[in-house]
Amino acid sequence: MRLKLTIAYEGSQFDGWQSQPGENTIQDHLEKAASEVAKETIKITGSGRTDAGVHALGQVAHFDVPESSGMNPFNWVPALNTKLPKVIRVLSAEEMPACFHARFSALSKTYYYDFNTEPVLSPFCVGRVWHLPRQLDSDTLKLAVECVRGTHDFRAFAAKRGNENEDTDYTRTLIDTRVEEMANGWRLVWTGNGFLYKMVRLLTGSVLEVAQGRMRLDDFVALLDQSPDLPCGRASFCAPADGLYLESVKYE
Amino acid sequence: MRLKLTIAYEGSQFDGWQSQPGENTIQDHLEKAASEVAKETIKITGSGRTDAGVHALGQVAHFDVPESSGMNPFNWVPALNTKLPKVIRVLSAEEMPACFHARFSALSKTYYYDFNTEPVLSPFCVGRVWHLPRQLDSDTLKLAVECVRGTHDFRAFAAKRGNENEDTDYTRTLIDTRVEEMANGWRLVWTGNGFLYKMVRLLTGSVLEVAQGRMRLDDFVALLDQSPDLPCGRASFCAPADGLYLESVKYE
Repeated sequence: MRLKLTIAYEGSQFDGWQSQPGENTIQDHLEKAASEVAKETIKITGSGRTDAGVHALGQVAHFDVPESSGMNPFNWVPALNTKLPKVIRVLSAEEMPACFHARFSALSKTYYYDFNTEPVLSPFCVGRVWHLPRQLDSDTLKLAVECVRGTHDFRAFAAKRGNENEDTDYTRTLIDTRVEEMANGWRLVWTGNGFLYKMVRLLTGSVLEVAQGRMRLDDFVALLDQSPDLPCGRASFCAPADGLYLESVKYE
Repeated sequence: MRLKLTIAYEGSQFDGWQSQPGENTIQDHLEKAASEVAKETIKITGSGRTDAGVHALGQVAHFDVPESSGMNPFNWVPALNTKLPKVIRVLSAEEMPACFHARFSALSKTYYYDFNTEPVLSPFCVGRVWHLPRQLDSDTLKLAVECVRGTHDFRAFAAKRGNENEDTDYTRTLIDTRVEEMANGWRLVWTGNGFLYKMVRLLTGSVLEVAQGRMRLDDFVALLDQSPDLPCGRASFCAPADGLYLESVKYE
């Protein structure tokens, strides 16, 4: 039986989603908990990675339940939550057809990025927003965020990932991009059919440079749709992980 | 010059307000920061203690600025915040008359207590609410909270404090007591002219016992105004620190 998990986590204390030697990633914690419940080794596949410090409200993952476990999907939620750190919670577990794949079946993802412009950041927001106590031009911010909507070549907004050689197709479609006013700052909402490595943080960092008047809107727009044949400018400002949330992953 | 500080803190990682040997209390951190700024030892007096894990949005404290520091009040806010952990923030610093005293000049304090009744607690609420995924009778809850309003002998709601022998007058006046509906639970608001040790948590624990039908309202009311001459019942359920916030301290 293939099980789809929806997971929320406060990412501050973890080394991101992807399993790695220190075993302090979300995937590591989930695999450990699921393996304990199933009494055999379980491998879990996520919809995609999130970096160290990034949060999720609706990350999605799947795994195949061994027949020997004899548990119905509903019971997996409390069984996993009992074994997980309290800052990682399984919100739901649903039985899916065997062809369901958390990564390859995903149609789109929505991330949001929160930043706070108050002079003093509340102790209750530490690690959960980007503290940017500066004057911002909200009209310019909205304009820059709107420019990103649609299909573009995002090579200027892709970080290199360690020793990997992937992401050779840099074309992605942002279905929706929005700016929402919050109590003490702003939320940037990014919905797309896929995201390159650090793309949301590089986009966020860049539009905030524009909104602070430290980068011209034209220069920002020129970073979209860079050609592979021409010398390529790059987004140079990556927003910190603190304010980034994977809100949801959409499937058919 | 006497300076009044208003301070917010996320208390999860601290051993409460009051200075103690491990030096991981709010008072310890503030005194260390202020002493570094003033380049001499500064002692800080708070409006009262908060326990380990308890939060504050508007704790108040005072200290006397050495004349040698030559700083105006406004500059103390960034100077202290630079040296403090990010989960402790000085929100304001105001010059006060020499007779001002953070504890003795206080007229009233408001605490609130948040609890959450969802089946699964959000990772973003860990340490910040009491997770109580149970059926509660909100009418009974409101009734119990209303019964506490006014002047009572609260000896049944006072914990003994280690080796100290204080709080011999158990009479306090709760000026306002309220239940507010929140998105996923409730907030109990307690405003009084003073509070005994653990009084808010013992009151909160008790009214929630009543709201769950595990204690009769009459038995709860009987705990108020216990006489010193008669065998004294005691509130037996102390709500955890996680959900408790010192919201504000009021002065003339």
